[in-house]
Amino acid sequence: MYEVGARDGLQAESAVLSSGVKVAFVGRLVAAGLRAIEVSSFVSPRRIPQLADAEEVLAALDLDGDVRFPVLVPNLRGLERAMACDVREIAIFVSATETFARRNLNTSLDGALDMARPVVERANAAGMNVRGYVSMCFGDPWEGYVEPRTAAGVVGRVFDLGCSSVSIGDTIGVATPGAVGAVLKEIRNAKIEMSRLAMHFHDTYGQALVNIREALSFDVREFDASAGGLGGCPYAKSATGNVATEDLVWMLHGLGVRTNVDLMSLVRTSVWMARHLGHPSPSRVVAALANVAGQRAET
Amino acid sequence: MYEVGARDGLQAESAVLSSGVKVAFVGRLVAAGLRAIEVSSFVSPRRIPQLADAEEVLAALDLDGDVRFPVLVPNLRGLERAMACDVREIAIFVSATETFARRNLNTSLDGALDMARPVVERANAAGMNVRGYVSMCFGDPWEGYVEPRTAAGVVGRVFDLGCSSVSIGDTIGVATPGAVGAVLKEIRNAKIEMSRLAMHFHDTYGQALVNIREALSFDVREFDASAGGLGGCPYAKSATGNVATEDLVWMLHGLGVRTNVDLMSLVRTSVWMARHLGHPSPSRVVAALANVAGQRAET
Repeated sequence: MYEVGARDGLQAESAVLSSGVKVAFVGRLVAAGLRAIEVSSFVSPRRIPQLADAEEVLAALDLDGDVRFPVLVPNLRGLERAMACDVREIAIFVSATETFARRNLNTSLDGALDMARPVVERANAAGMNVRGYVSMCFGDPWEGYVEPRTAAGVVGRVFDLGCSSVSIGDTIGVATPGAVGAVLKEIRNAKIEMSRLAMHFHDTYGQALVNIREALSFDVREFDASAGGLGGCPYAKSATGNVATEDLVWMLHGLGVRTNVDLMSLVRTSVWMARHLGHPSPSRVVAALANVAGQRAET
Repeated sequence: MYEVGARDGLQAESAVLSSGVKVAFVGRLVAAGLRAIEVSSFVSPRRIPQLADAEEVLAALDLDGDVRFPVLVPNLRGLERAMACDVREIAIFVSATETFARRNLNTSLDGALDMARPVVERANAAGMNVRGYVSMCFGDPWEGYVEPRTAAGVVGRVFDLGCSSVSIGDTIGVATPGAVGAVLKEIRNAKIEMSRLAMHFHDTYGQALVNIREALSFDVREFDASAGGLGGCPYAKSATGNVATEDLVWMLHGLGVRTNVDLMSLVRTSVWMARHLGHPSPSRVVAALANVAGQRAET
């Protein structure tokens, strides 16, 4: 489990939180047993005010322990900020579709890869691991359906940049298990190792868990999720963002997978965060267990 | 797809609807393409006031067409009412656990089967199909975890009563794909044909779709669902009831399964029903598509 609540989750939330709350949030995620937590993003503070305090949050964390604390980096300037914070792992992003590259990054797909290349190279030279996100692998709001071969091709090009892992993103949550299988077959045909892949599902249409189950059958072993299902989707009108870490943990535990995550601790964290954000968690598991988990310790 | 919104869904809703609204609801479900719609229940009106008007609703339907309109029947008195309405298919229910039988039916598991036997026999003698529900097949609120062999044993006994199909129920929504596989393996070992099974999942922990996907891989082909995810769960504090028909249709269409269901028509029906019930649908697909589906025709 690769926890994206503090970055992908919070960047979509309208209530701007204090750095103290964010540090407490990350601390609680660590305490609940999560071992890969994307902390923030070095995008322009004008663009995403919620994440303008990346330096402050990072300064409070133990970056030399056994928990991975990657940070999203959009360009060389972001990489410099990350290096100044002694970050050990970064993430870069491109999209599988031309339209998204134009709309979101004001460039072409080739242009986005060209922008990312020196970031990856300099980070690798500095000994950092680099994760690549490929968004819109199953569909985007403008082009609609994305060909599995197109998505797999972009994933291959992101590995070629020098990324150690790539997260295949269903940014608008339109994937179903059939589409997941189709993309993963193309990737397998391209001789990319499944152990280097992650998948990133949004739960817009309630398909995230069944998509993860499909990917598990292809031996994909890393999945992005956000505590409490934090984060809406900026490109589709819906209340649901990333798949909730709690829902994923529930499924994995039911499948007999050991996660070392304390589910009740995570549920209490999401209930606590929901109070800060002013709206309830969309996670089914949080809703079902909020009363059971007990909240006395929180108030 | 076996639609249970008008029965299992509405019986858990606190807003009591007029018979006219229920008839309109069933009519819209038919128009959207559903071909098996459980209409109501002949339980005591004191017990479930919402379904006290079963006769009135049935009187408005075409029971001789190609749409199945089964009705739940708890006892011989209920069967007489069903026969008086010219119902062609009924459903009976037992539970996989002793405690639920005691709490819900004030009898033992054997006692519940003994109560159901003459109902099934008389219905079969009158040429009716009988569906058996086995609830709490994965866990119940009192005994907790249910052994797969126990659940499979009760399913076998319900077939022995003379039921033509049996719906395996996860009434409190605790099942995960691992548990689904375990129960279905026991049932396969017992030489029960998968084509005679249905499965009934609640989405309390968000696992309903992934459980259905698992059951599909065992060749189970009938799944209970309720339009808009209608219905809470009376035994677990949570907002979510049956898996939403819309969420299931979205997954099936993505898997390339033809359902003949008009998804947008179904979404508009659930938006319309949500106004009658006074709360929004918990379905992810309804939330995501409500704006797209257009609601002008509804107002």
